Amino acid sequence: SSASTPIRATLFPGDGIGPEIAESVKQVFREADVPIEWEEHYVGTEIDPRTQSFLTWESLESVRKNGVGLKGPMATPIGKGHRSLNLTLRKELNLYANVRPCYSLPGYKTRYDNVDLITIRENTEGEYSGLEHQVVRGVVESLKIITRQASLRVAEYAFHYAKSHGRERVSAIHKANIMQKTDGLFLKCCREVAEKYPEIKYEEVVIDNCCMMLVKNPALFDVLVMPNLYGDIISDLCAGLIGGLGLTPSCNIGEGGIALAEAVHGSAPDIAGKNLANPTALLLSAVTMLRHLELHDKADRIQNAILGTISEGKFRTADLGGSSSTSDFTQAIIDHL
Amino acid sequence: SSASTPIRATLFPGDGIGPEIAESVKQVFREADVPIEWEEHYVGTEIDPRTQSFLTWESLESVRKNGVGLKGPMATPIGKGHRSLNLTLRKELNLYANVRPCYSLPGYKTRYDNVDLITIRENTEGEYSGLEHQVVRGVVESLKIITRQASLRVAEYAFHYAKSHGRERVSAIHKANIMQKTDGLFLKCCREVAEKYPEIKYEEVVIDNCCMMLVKNPALFDVLVMPNLYGDIISDLCAGLIGGLGLTPSCNIGEGGIALAEAVHGSAPDIAGKNLANPTALLLSAVTMLRHLELHDKADRIQNAILGTISEGKFRTADLGGSSSTSDFTQAIIDHL
Ligand SMILES: CC(C)[C@H](C(=O)O)[C@@H](O)C(=O)O
Ligand SMILES: CC(C)[C@H](C(=O)O)[C@@H](O)C(=O)O
Repeated sequence: SSASTPIRATLFPGDGIGPEIAESVKQVFREADVPIEWEEHYVGTEIDPRTQSFLTWESLESVRKNGVGLKGPMATPIGKGHRSLNLTLRKELNLYANVRPCYSLPGYKTRYDNVDLITIRENTEGEYSGLEHQVVRGVVESLKIITRQASLRVAEYAFHYAKSHGRERVSAIHKANIMQKTDGLFLKCCREVAEKYPEIKYEEVVIDNCCMMLVKNPALFDVLVMPNLYGDIISDLCAGLIGGLGLTPSCNIGEGGIALAEAVHGSAPDIAGKNLANPTALLLSAVTMLRHLELHDKADRIQNAILGTISEGKFRTADLGGSSSTSDFTQAIIDHL
Repeated sequence: SSASTPIRATLFPGDGIGPEIAESVKQVFREADVPIEWEEHYVGTEIDPRTQSFLTWESLESVRKNGVGLKGPMATPIGKGHRSLNLTLRKELNLYANVRPCYSLPGYKTRYDNVDLITIRENTEGEYSGLEHQVVRGVVESLKIITRQASLRVAEYAFHYAKSHGRERVSAIHKANIMQKTDGLFLKCCREVAEKYPEIKYEEVVIDNCCMMLVKNPALFDVLVMPNLYGDIISDLCAGLIGGLGLTPSCNIGEGGIALAEAVHGSAPDIAGKNLANPTALLLSAVTMLRHLELHDKADRIQNAILGTISEGKFRTADLGGSSSTSDFTQAIIDHL
């Protein structure tokens, strides 16, 4: 991590507010002397004027080659006949685990104090198979696929994460009382992996009960691992506990050690280009990327500056009840470095 | 509703704490002069000594004939090779809509004030099809089925409920950005029905976003309608907002106007028979049954006595932080009648 040999990382600013918040990350990284050289590619729902396409081979190759990347929001058109770009990236880069740390931000009050949860979501299969068809008029079906391979892989990741981050417990979230074969296989894989980590407590919690317990007392949980759709739902629920998707980082882990960090909030076209967006989620995601690169000093310095700025409360964007612009908030973070 | 012509209603006390809390309902109804004669049947996971079976034809016929019933908790064995009794009842009685009113109990403090939500869950299909199989070793799939008929039926119920209960808005909860055909059909049906109710506002909310918004600000919602699994998840989440499943009523609506009210919490075998269980959920469910029978005076009287007792706070069961027995709490409700 010396300044003379920069690490190359891919940057997909994305749609809507993406470019503004990506700019914020670039500035903060520059000011913090992070030895990263960004390789920027456009991936998004606007047609790229140069390539006439949404997602180029070069964009994918850039992540594969660099091994690390950061992505901004990409709009998901409903029923427009093309797949979500988020999904395409997950499939193409085999991003099998989505890790979302979710912790209360000091000084930013919600109904919940001291939330500290990690959701780890299987990111490639389950209800996201894309396999759907009409059986007869008025009767449609979709296939949920659970495989031993993907379940073991994400369970391994979850237990390894728990162990290496000093966490105590992994909860596998499921609905195996109804989906005995699919969610049953997922649980079986989690149990197999759990046996290899006797120092980590392991429990199984039914998804409906899990959601009830999370809103009653999030401190009951530590690391949660689950199939795709449950992860989608629970990670958003957890984000809600601490203030919303504008504040929670996310990182996708792919085979071969690829890490693609991402802001999971929307592209907010209504405020795009107006210098109003909150860059926190993308900044904190960029921090998870630094941790993946083991640049912990830089990660700590930037994370503390972000949390310090929010905690101080003088500069907050509108979504947090303040009236700061993206650039003023970014400058305040830089001043906190 | 004259005392001389009693209405017959079916009662399934169920497993675990079921008999105790059913006793509480019977006492309160008796003291409030509710003109109901219970027809009690055992349905549960213990073998019935008389019939050697979990669920008899007579039990089902009783609900069909009476048109109304009340059920206590029934344990769902995981992976014991027989279907959940809850599910069997839903299928056999064609209980197509599960209605769960969820409101803050005056005087019982949680993190949320003034919650007032109605979740209406499609109760017969979706992820609960029971169709699962292993494709090859290590690859299993389950089928989610969405039909036009069931979706229209539950959407009709939701809009009719909203209109007849003076509600303003129906939100259809979905994941049609991923499951375009299945959840897409569900939404299409909701839209068709919405057009017949121009006085009711209609919106569509993606399930992950819905969960986030519910924990941030439940007042954003009013009546929510959704496919089976999302209903399972969201109704429990909502229950968590106001204190848990021990406090929330539930009623299942079947074709031909059948109403089977039920406590949706577990059978709590650890405290069964100890006079410690909280009968509130079953009592409030019994109240929804009275409303279904249009016995609104009795319903109001009993509901007020329950809420008054909890609000007063002198008699509360252990799950609500008190030390009252089931029978003392029940007596306090009777004193409030
Ligand atoms: C946009 C959508 C396809 C996506 C998902 O469902 O996975 C989003 O909700 C997320 O969690 O990243
Ligand atoms: C016990 C279980 C089968 C049931 C369900 O999943 O529907 C329960 O969670 C419920 O909500 O009634």
